[in-house]
Amino acid sequence: MTQTHDSDDSSLETNRATDSTTDDDSSERDPLFARIPRRDFMKAGAATGAMASMAGCTGLLGGDDSVSLEDVKTSVEPGEHDDYYAFLSGGHTGEIRVYGLPSMRQLMRIPVFQTESARGYGYDDRTSEMLEEAGGYTWGDAHHPRVSQTDNDYDGRWAFVNDKANGRMARIDLEYFETDAIVDIPNQQGTHGACCLLPDTKYVFGVGEFRVPMPNDGQDLDDPSNYTSTIAAIDPETMNVEWEVLVDGNMDNGDGGKEGRWFFATGYNSEHATTESEMSSSDTDWVKAFDVPAIEEAVEAGDYDEIGGVPVVDGTRDSSLNESDRPIVRYLDVSKSPHGVSVTPDGKYAIASGKLDPTASVIDIETLADADDPNDAIVGRPRLGMGPLHTAYDGRGHAYTTLFIDSQVVKWDIEAAVEASEESEDPVIEKVDVHYNPGHLIAAESYTADPQGDWLISLNKLSKDRFLPVGPMHPENDQLIYIGDDEEGMSLVKDTPSYAEPHDASIVSAEKLDPAKVYDPEDYDEEFISPEDNDISRENGRVHVKMHSQRNQFGFTDVTVTEGDEVTFTVTNVEQTADLLHSLAIPEYDVNIKLAPQETREVTFTADEPGVYWMYCAFFCSALHLEMRSRLLVEPAE
Amino acid sequence: MTQTHDSDDSSLETNRATDSTTDDDSSERDPLFARIPRRDFMKAGAATGAMASMAGCTGLLGGDDSVSLEDVKTSVEPGEHDDYYAFLSGGHTGEIRVYGLPSMRQLMRIPVFQTESARGYGYDDRTSEMLEEAGGYTWGDAHHPRVSQTDNDYDGRWAFVNDKANGRMARIDLEYFETDAIVDIPNQQGTHGACCLLPDTKYVFGVGEFRVPMPNDGQDLDDPSNYTSTIAAIDPETMNVEWEVLVDGNMDNGDGGKEGRWFFATGYNSEHATTESEMSSSDTDWVKAFDVPAIEEAVEAGDYDEIGGVPVVDGTRDSSLNESDRPIVRYLDVSKSPHGVSVTPDGKYAIASGKLDPTASVIDIETLADADDPNDAIVGRPRLGMGPLHTAYDGRGHAYTTLFIDSQVVKWDIEAAVEASEESEDPVIEKVDVHYNPGHLIAAESYTADPQGDWLISLNKLSKDRFLPVGPMHPENDQLIYIGDDEEGMSLVKDTPSYAEPHDASIVSAEKLDPAKVYDPEDYDEEFISPEDNDISRENGRVHVKMHSQRNQFGFTDVTVTEGDEVTFTVTNVEQTADLLHSLAIPEYDVNIKLAPQETREVTFTADEPGVYWMYCAFFCSALHLEMRSRLLVEPAE
Repeated sequence: MTQTHDSDDSSLETNRATDSTTDDDSSERDPLFARIPRRDFMKAGAATGAMASMAGCTGLLGGDDSVSLEDVKTSVEPGEHDDYYAFLSGGHTGEIRVYGLPSMRQLMRIPVFQTESARGYGYDDRTSEMLEEAGGYTWGDAHHPRVSQTDNDYDGRWAFVNDKANGRMARIDLEYFETDAIVDIPNQQGTHGACCLLPDTKYVFGVGEFRVPMPNDGQDLDDPSNYTSTIAAIDPETMNVEWEVLVDGNMDNGDGGKEGRWFFATGYNSEHATTESEMSSSDTDWVKAFDVPAIEEAVEAGDYDEIGGVPVVDGTRDSSLNESDRPIVRYLDVSKSPHGVSVTPDGKYAIASGKLDPTASVIDIETLADADDPNDAIVGRPRLGMGPLHTAYDGRGHAYTTLFIDSQVVKWDIEAAVEASEESEDPVIEKVDVHYNPGHLIAAESYTADPQGDWLISLNKLSKDRFLPVGPMHPENDQLIYIGDDEEGMSLVKDTPSYAEPHDASIVSAEKLDPAKVYDPEDYDEEFISPEDNDISRENGRVHVKMHSQRNQFGFTDVTVTEGDEVTFTVTNVEQTADLLHSLAIPEYDVNIKLAPQETREVTFTADEPGVYWMYCAFFCSALHLEMRSRLLVEPAE
Repeated sequence: MTQTHDSDDSSLETNRATDSTTDDDSSERDPLFARIPRRDFMKAGAATGAMASMAGCTGLLGGDDSVSLEDVKTSVEPGEHDDYYAFLSGGHTGEIRVYGLPSMRQLMRIPVFQTESARGYGYDDRTSEMLEEAGGYTWGDAHHPRVSQTDNDYDGRWAFVNDKANGRMARIDLEYFETDAIVDIPNQQGTHGACCLLPDTKYVFGVGEFRVPMPNDGQDLDDPSNYTSTIAAIDPETMNVEWEVLVDGNMDNGDGGKEGRWFFATGYNSEHATTESEMSSSDTDWVKAFDVPAIEEAVEAGDYDEIGGVPVVDGTRDSSLNESDRPIVRYLDVSKSPHGVSVTPDGKYAIASGKLDPTASVIDIETLADADDPNDAIVGRPRLGMGPLHTAYDGRGHAYTTLFIDSQVVKWDIEAAVEASEESEDPVIEKVDVHYNPGHLIAAESYTADPQGDWLISLNKLSKDRFLPVGPMHPENDQLIYIGDDEEGMSLVKDTPSYAEPHDASIVSAEKLDPAKVYDPEDYDEEFISPEDNDISRENGRVHVKMHSQRNQFGFTDVTVTEGDEVTFTVTNVEQTADLLHSLAIPEYDVNIKLAPQETREVTFTADEPGVYWMYCAFFCSALHLEMRSRLLVEPAE
């Protein structure tokens, strides 16, 4: 889990030499190796045992490797697969988008906080009830997709994402690539940060941003000194909020340490103000370090108030001690309105970016545990540039930080920053222009203990003139940058326009996910309807139609109901073949449910308009797709 | 408008020779030309007058040109612009997507039939009222994007798209790239086809698919012989339905002639059946040729029934004569369940694909006008392959047809098909595999009189194993194929995964659109709110807040209302700088409105929950973006 980081140029030189020697050796050994790029060679080599001499290597390019861009796959030819999944949030679209890297092609959208008709999300009974129980909102502001880990590596189970607009956290099942749970977090308005407690995703944390009265019921409306915000610890299995901690100031981003003890959150507005100028008036704000075992001890000891059905521990600056007098939250003074915080792959440091200050703060996590004054744990403060926001890692000892105002990504040496005098620019290795105004950035597997070190995406908020004009609402620009060559430096490889507003991303090696291609009916409560189960039952104005679907028919050619009936359709796609989807679309009744192979969904509606309605399959499933229709006959009541 | 098509191999050889000579000449003439690909050379040459010797050339690659793939821009480097806009429908997502070609990057999404929160579409009062008036549905099935033309060329004004689910037609304003009108077409359930009457987009036609009783009010529910479907002629300026024509059988796709007289629609289910097997039992179905002036004459003469507020002319097989005994619809017998129909760039032929028959039918439009038996106008019936669906053109005399069952695109010679004996395979030049099961395809500017002849997209319904797996709902696969080289043939260049379910597309040269980058406040009814116009007015439980927005503030730092108030916010983004968007997001009130530079939107809601709500800007607009917030204080009633 720990790695050695190089802090001087001479050892970087050594790495390059070692690396190119290995390359040459391999291509001499076997003509096959000469034809495949280094990335593939490394995979092939690992499989055949030829990589034994590189046992120290972590990840494809991890450890001390540095590989020229020329030897790397940058385009993905027709029929080839990408090397990585990237999960990008969709901001105020409310969705998650799945990209392939390095192609930057969008492979899939996953609706989370909004309804989406092609998937039938929010249309079938199960998903519409889930959205209703999560507050009934029609949108959300999806910011931070985080993928679950076991032993500090991606385990392929879930992705999580917060709703900044309505204080929620959602879970995406990575077997089916669909949202399967959303929790409306009590006592939180505006859940900004989302991150996992590592190494094993014990909790998913929702970091509350907007300070409001608690409870927010109309009392004490205009007394900002009594507004509060909380961090919420959510059980990833049950999606229950286990506890919350009440703190001072606004919070935004967060990241968990690798060892299960610490969680870090940045915060602006230590001023407890309500206007922009007041919020940014102080020269320092806080990074809050949450001592998770100390919090659990307080909860265990009953040292909390139950608010909104959740144990809320007092973690404000003046009251932040548990029963053993151990501080449960430590407040570190960092430069003005820090924004992003992320823990280095080795778990050694948490690095917080200054936003309104040109520096980042390097927090030594081991020191933090023992220091009387938590500020003693701030061991480096490199001067990076204007508007530093977020930091990612390559596993070779470098940090990459977005500079929002400078429109750059800066690469810097972490240990050099610790060794340098305060606010030194020495640790800065290189800057690359991005287009324009980057928010988050993400490197491949940067959040694990073993980043891959090859690709980085800079999520730029403005695209200005980079693409063909498409009206006043411009796309954003997600730029793919190669960071695998320490000698040649960073290389901008691709511009990717994106619909507003990707906030953040996680990048996962393709082999770490194993999605299902067909549903397992055992995974859901709905009854599987085979052709022999087709049935229409009627009772007291309720009609229940159970039918299968299969190229090119539904179980019934027509279904007659009476005006005013409450009608439920339970429909199964009985196909076994992957990618053969059907749907049940009902014109003018605003119904469309998606049915992947072996999937069952139910939809319930009131048949309130008499007439003939041609139910059809909206997925183009065969040459007789147009003919795959049934009639819903709604007879007048009278 | 007319072109000469080559029908034999020797003339194709001549073209190739001419073409390569031109290429060589140009690169010798000026070293500049050696460095720029042929496409760019042709643009540069046209600008400097160097192209005078190629005056016969229509479009970049139109006329008789054929250019090697090696000389064509296939990738778009960071910062470079694409050459084309492609408008792809989003199927049952209800949206339109704008791609750049040849990069195949998605530049923008345009929500049409569904709400979309990042754009605030369906959230602000103007768009939510528009959706409500268009039936109040939350989704649609967007199939056929068609771009308006003047003189048979794209004029950059509008795109239109149908809703197959709910019988509607929408218009997209190509100045602002946003949906500005939707009409709920009377008497139509399932508007499948959409296309313009050329040369000047006099009408947009909505082609009704699902046959239902007219009116569909619960009477005659189960008497399919009395079900009807119609074609609707919509005025593109007013979006009023001017008239409809009632026909026999189901219809699906349509295309207009180039000369303002004919509109063609394919149709299956001449059987007037209600089940899949009955619908496909007959060996022939119809192409319907609508004689537009004859219909207008009938309407003018009052020879119609007014149904659903619209003049409906009887165009059924037995009654299809106007007052001058001129048939207003001609029924042509073509092979089993024809699917796509499209008119050749020279306006000479309408080509209908067989779907359940391996042939296409070539209809001679001039012959059709004079023939006693409309079937005399069918002048060719090339045997293309299994499941022919749709046909596009390159302007060099070739047709490209998707073969759904064979998973191929077939290139064939149109005049050769006319000259060949019936059902000959001779006209077939080449087939290329696509992956898999293509529905529509589209070539650059194929719907104009001057196709560009370089790029073609095959919209494939299944992707199977072409991409990293992403769960049971697979992406589709839109494949980019180079068709500009008649010697080397078609080349598959790119696989592009796409979210369900692109049905069809139109491709427009970049220089033919001129989108605005900033709103013109004169274009809308909402009041422009400058900082000096900030105002809160209250009357009888109605609160109207007028405020501006500008980095990093809203016009008011807080707004106090009383529980139960109906609150309207009118908000203007007063920025002048392109790409600097704001929004007004209100947590827990389910509000988010988008505000592009100089744009004003209004949103109205009932403040029914007391508390503090942090209104914020959801577009990342500056380093102080997080601080761009105001408080909505909702005081308890009583």
